[in-house]
Amino acid sequence: MMLINGVPAESIPATDRGLAYGDGVFRTLRARQGEPLHWLRHYMKLSVDCAALGITCPDQALLAREARTVASAHPDAVIKIIVTRGSGARGYAPPTPSVPLRVVMGAARSQSVDALAASGIALHLCRLRLAHQPALAGVKHLNRLENVLARAEWRDAGTAEGLLLDQSGCAIGGTMSNLFIVEQGTLRTPLLSLCGVSGVTRERVRELAEKMRLPCQVDDLPLQRVMDAEEVFVVNSVIGLWPVVRLQERRWPRGPVSTAMHQALEADDAALA
Amino acid sequence: MMLINGVPAESIPATDRGLAYGDGVFRTLRARQGEPLHWLRHYMKLSVDCAALGITCPDQALLAREARTVASAHPDAVIKIIVTRGSGARGYAPPTPSVPLRVVMGAARSQSVDALAASGIALHLCRLRLAHQPALAGVKHLNRLENVLARAEWRDAGTAEGLLLDQSGCAIGGTMSNLFIVEQGTLRTPLLSLCGVSGVTRERVRELAEKMRLPCQVDDLPLQRVMDAEEVFVVNSVIGLWPVVRLQERRWPRGPVSTAMHQALEADDAALA
Repeated sequence: MMLINGVPAESIPATDRGLAYGDGVFRTLRARQGEPLHWLRHYMKLSVDCAALGITCPDQALLAREARTVASAHPDAVIKIIVTRGSGARGYAPPTPSVPLRVVMGAARSQSVDALAASGIALHLCRLRLAHQPALAGVKHLNRLENVLARAEWRDAGTAEGLLLDQSGCAIGGTMSNLFIVEQGTLRTPLLSLCGVSGVTRERVRELAEKMRLPCQVDDLPLQRVMDAEEVFVVNSVIGLWPVVRLQERRWPRGPVSTAMHQALEADDAALA
Repeated sequence: MMLINGVPAESIPATDRGLAYGDGVFRTLRARQGEPLHWLRHYMKLSVDCAALGITCPDQALLAREARTVASAHPDAVIKIIVTRGSGARGYAPPTPSVPLRVVMGAARSQSVDALAASGIALHLCRLRLAHQPALAGVKHLNRLENVLARAEWRDAGTAEGLLLDQSGCAIGGTMSNLFIVEQGTLRTPLLSLCGVSGVTRERVRELAEKMRLPCQVDDLPLQRVMDAEEVFVVNSVIGLWPVVRLQERRWPRGPVSTAMHQALEADDAALA
């Protein structure tokens, strides 16, 4: 089901700047029994991302209502929210005032992602390197061609995610997920000040780590540190946590920190119910 | 007027990947008396850009027909063509097969751009620096947030264009145009292998320079070389050529090379009629 500016619909104006320039942001999140999980975190991130582009973020209560509506058809749902700067005349200059467009869509969440949480995944090492753009780093905006090109590098159904490096060879994340490694019992996740998307589940992992008294640091992670890590896992709001069990020739067993963090995330989700 | 997949319409599916990821390319060109100028050059560039993203480019004759249709309402028109990878399920992986979407729209060309060709323009020096992404450099794709953010830096109506530098401080182009400078009688235009968009009019200027026996070289152009240049101008398919008469404290008179090249472009356009 889909709501466009609150109305059931399936199309947007062809003059929308989301299409013309990718001039907007988005969120993908999970809902259970019609209730979006970690809603306020997602809304906060959406509004921070809107602010980064100078787009007026739709009202929280309004979006929450729409998210619940589209999720209600499925006991376990994925909600996607897109907010664009709206329509405008030709030209890059943002119209003043602009009237943002919001698309809220819901679909059943695939149960296959949970099997991967149990089995662990193989990671493709992407050839595409992320560009450094501090003005957009961290923001989940609609300019995602790097992710599209990276994801198009493999079709093997047995490989669930790709590892993206930046132009200096540091690991930044998966094509659709954030990355963590375990080094001598310490969690580390890449610094995202020059590229990458900082997701809500990344923040949750950092907070849960604190509660678990597990040190967690943000750092530059050259590929070799990932290869040498004791454990590697990726997270996002829809998949939860996937342990990485293979990257090129490197193999990992499913490790204790990944398992503990996966359980902590699930317990944290369950506490919302 | 607007045609979407050949049919008069004003909206596109909200599931289109052009909206979701900026997964597509575009062209903006001029038409006179319903006839798109330099059509085959534009089509060639569109198809090269589609190929860079692995998108099947719509048929040439079909697009030409649609371009003529939308342009026909205006003696002097701007045509915009967007080609996206089409709709797909959630997720970055390009659907196979994909069914590209095409949007062809026409509008009256503003005559005010010709006044600026005569008067020359002020150039804003953008604070935003373009990221280096060789996988996308040169391609006129729909990921244009850098241009949007740069164009949002100024609102002064007297400033017609902004100068974009890359992250190493080299001039790359305008927010919507390609850049040329004149140094000791030689034309120079920035190397676009790491960022920027290589436009059709940039190619035409290079070819016309050859006919005019005017040396023209592609080079790295640190900002200081622009400041020290004898002449500076920007070009695109809709504006033609705008001489730059001001950039920060620097002033230029309208120079002889800019004037000659402007005349050559106009003569070349007229020869099409």
